[in-house]
Amino acid sequence: MLPVASDPTVGVKVGFTPLIKADRLAKRLGIRELWIKNDTVNYPTLSFKDRVVSVALSRARELGFTTVACASTGNLANSVAANAASAGLKSYVFIPSDLEQGKIVNSLVYGANVIAIKGHYDEVNRLCAEIAGKFGWAFVNVNMRPYYAEGSKSMGYEIAEQLGWQIPQHTVVPMASGSLLTKIHKSFQELTKLGLVSESAYKVHGAQATGCSPISVAQKAGLDFFKPVKPNTIAKSLSIGTPADGFYALRVMKETGAACDDVTDDEIREGIKLLAEYEGIFTETAGGVTVGVAKKLIAAGKIPANDSAVLCITGNGLKTLDAVVGHVGNTREIKPSLREFETLLANENLSTVTT
Amino acid sequence: MLPVASDPTVGVKVGFTPLIKADRLAKRLGIRELWIKNDTVNYPTLSFKDRVVSVALSRARELGFTTVACASTGNLANSVAANAASAGLKSYVFIPSDLEQGKIVNSLVYGANVIAIKGHYDEVNRLCAEIAGKFGWAFVNVNMRPYYAEGSKSMGYEIAEQLGWQIPQHTVVPMASGSLLTKIHKSFQELTKLGLVSESAYKVHGAQATGCSPISVAQKAGLDFFKPVKPNTIAKSLSIGTPADGFYALRVMKETGAACDDVTDDEIREGIKLLAEYEGIFTETAGGVTVGVAKKLIAAGKIPANDSAVLCITGNGLKTLDAVVGHVGNTREIKPSLREFETLLANENLSTVTT
Ligand SMILES: Cc1ncc(COP(=O)(O)O)c(C=O)c1O
Ligand SMILES: Cc1ncc(COP(=O)(O)O)c(C=O)c1O
Repeated sequence: MLPVASDPTVGVKVGFTPLIKADRLAKRLGIRELWIKNDTVNYPTLSFKDRVVSVALSRARELGFTTVACASTGNLANSVAANAASAGLKSYVFIPSDLEQGKIVNSLVYGANVIAIKGHYDEVNRLCAEIAGKFGWAFVNVNMRPYYAEGSKSMGYEIAEQLGWQIPQHTVVPMASGSLLTKIHKSFQELTKLGLVSESAYKVHGAQATGCSPISVAQKAGLDFFKPVKPNTIAKSLSIGTPADGFYALRVMKETGAACDDVTDDEIREGIKLLAEYEGIFTETAGGVTVGVAKKLIAAGKIPANDSAVLCITGNGLKTLDAVVGHVGNTREIKPSLREFETLLANENLSTVTT
Repeated sequence: MLPVASDPTVGVKVGFTPLIKADRLAKRLGIRELWIKNDTVNYPTLSFKDRVVSVALSRARELGFTTVACASTGNLANSVAANAASAGLKSYVFIPSDLEQGKIVNSLVYGANVIAIKGHYDEVNRLCAEIAGKFGWAFVNVNMRPYYAEGSKSMGYEIAEQLGWQIPQHTVVPMASGSLLTKIHKSFQELTKLGLVSESAYKVHGAQATGCSPISVAQKAGLDFFKPVKPNTIAKSLSIGTPADGFYALRVMKETGAACDDVTDDEIREGIKLLAEYEGIFTETAGGVTVGVAKKLIAAGKIPANDSAVLCITGNGLKTLDAVVGHVGNTREIKPSLREFETLLANENLSTVTT
C-alpha cells in the first residue's frame, strides 16, 4: 500500500510507535476516551517525518539517485540527514535560518550539507523547486513528493490496527502543509475499502498555531481556499504560510464534518505541559498545538465528551527546548545537606512523609 | 525474571528497542560484524534508564509508595519524572547542579520537584541515602536499588533474542556506577542456565570517559578495587567518581576475560560523529564513550577483527547538545536565490549533478 517497487531499504525500523491510552489526560480534558499516537519516539529522528522519508528515500534509491535533499521546517531535515547517512547517500537540507538549535545540530551531526536560507519556509520551498528542476537530486518533498506524501499513511494504518482494526471517531492532526491530515484520511478510506475495518463515520480535525493559521482561518470562515500568511509563532515546524495541501486539507475536513482551530503560543506551551504532567510524554511545539486544539474542541463540544479521540503527537520536545525554558518552573538549588533540604521542604510547605 | 509480583504497571511500553546491523560503521572500525543496541529511542525518555525505572516504580507501587525519588546524573531523573507523572505519583529528583539544560528541562516539564545539589554526584548520592533513611519515599536507586538494578537485565535479554537467541562474542557497555555492565552479564548467565541460549564464551567490555575513569584505571592496572576520583568530563551521565558497583564490574570483566578502556572528550565527540555519519544514530556523550572505546579495543586487537560485537548505545544526543555544538560543522547561510546557491557550490567545489 506504499509506492515502492520492492521492500523499503531506507529507514526500515520506522513506525509502529506506541498508541497510549491517556486516561489521566482524558479526565483533565473532559472526554470519555483519549489516545495518544506517540511519534515522539519514532525511528530514527523522533518525529512522524521518519515515515515519509523512509518511503521517499527507498524510492529514490530504486530510481538510482545518490544525492537527496529537502526543503524543511526542521524535522524533515533531521530525518533526511539521518536516513541518508545510514544509507550512504549524500544529502542537502534547506531550512529557514531562524530554526531551533536542536533541529540545526540534529541535521549537522549526520554530516549533511545544511543550507540556511534567510527567509521563510515558503522562500526555501521556492528555491528548492528551482534547484530540483535544474539538478539531478531527489528532493523528497518536491520532485519526490508523491512518494513522500504516501508515507504519512502508515500513521493512520497503525492507529486503526492498534485500536483493534477500528477507525477512531475523532483524530486531531497538526497541519503545516496539510499533507499529513489528508493522508490519515486516505489511510482510513483504504482500510475501509479493503474491508480491514468496518465502515464507520469519523472526523479528522485540523490543528494550527494562531501565528500561522491559514488553513484554520479559512475553515472557520467556511471557505474552500486559504489566504497565505507570514508565520510568527513558536511552532516553527508548522510555520508554512502557503500550505501546499491546504486546499485538500480543507476538503477532507468538510467531507468528514470535522472542525479546525488554532492556539496561541501560550496555549501551545500549556498543551506541552498538560501532556507531560498527565501522561509523561514530552512533545515539541507541534504536539502542544494538537493538545491545545483538542482541548478547545472538547470544551466547545465539537468533540463530544462521550466520544473517543486520538491525538497525533508528531515530534519530540527535546528539539524545541527554547519554547519551554523559563515556562516549566525552576530547579531548587541547595548544598548537599539534609538540613538544607528540610528547610526547603518546610519553606515550601511540602509534606515529608507520604507513604 | 524481573522482581515484580505481578505484571509491571509503570512504563509498560519500555524496551524492545532496535538492534541495528551496523555494516557501514563495522567497515570503518575494521570489524567483521557490528550491532548497535539502540536505546536512544527507548520509551518514554530516550535512555536505558527507562528500563530500570519501569521495574523500580512498578515495585514501588506494589509496596504502596506514593512519592518516588532518585539521585541522578540526568537520565534517571528524566525517566523517574516522566514515569511518575504518567502513573500519578509525586516525584523528587536530585541532580548535580551543573547538568546539561536538556536534562534539566526534561525533568521539570513533567512537574517533578527538581533539587539541584551544588556538588558532584557522589555528594548527591550521599544526601539521598540520608533522606531515604528518614522519609518514607521510594528512592529508585537507594532503598529500591535491588529492584532497579535488575531492570537493566532486559537490555541483555533483548540483545540475545534479537540475535536469534545467541549471546554476542563481545558487548561494549558504558559505565557510571557499573550496574548496567554487571546486569548484562547476569542476563546472559540466566539465559544460558535456562537453556534459552546455548553456552558460549563471551566478553562484556567496560567503557568510561578518561575524565572519570576509576573502573577503567583499576582494570588496566589489574586491580580488583578502584580509587575514587573527582569527575571532569563532558560525559556527565557517566560522572560517578565512587561507582557503587565498580567492584562487581571489575569482577565481571575479569571473569569473562574482557577488556576495559577510557576515552578523552575529543574522542567522545568523534565517537558521536562516527555513529551519526555512518549509521544515522545521534547518541549522547555516553554513547560516544562506547563507540570511542570500541574503536580503541578493535584497533588494539582486544576485540579481534574477525569477531562480532554489540555496542550498547544508552542515551539520545538531543539531551547533550552542548557537547557537540561547534564541533559538527556549520550551516551555510544564503539568501533564497538560485544564483547564491550555485556560487556556494562552486566556491566549495561541490558537484552539482550526481545522479
Ligand atoms: C512535528 C510536525 N508535525 C506536523 C507537521 C505537519 O506536516 P504537514 O506538512 O504534513 O502538514 C510537521 C511538518 O513539518 C512537523 O514537523
Ligand atoms: C546514558 C547512560 N549510559 C550509561 C549509564 C551507566 O549506568 P550504570 O550506573 O548502570 O553504570 C548511565 C548512567 O546514568 C547513563 O545515563
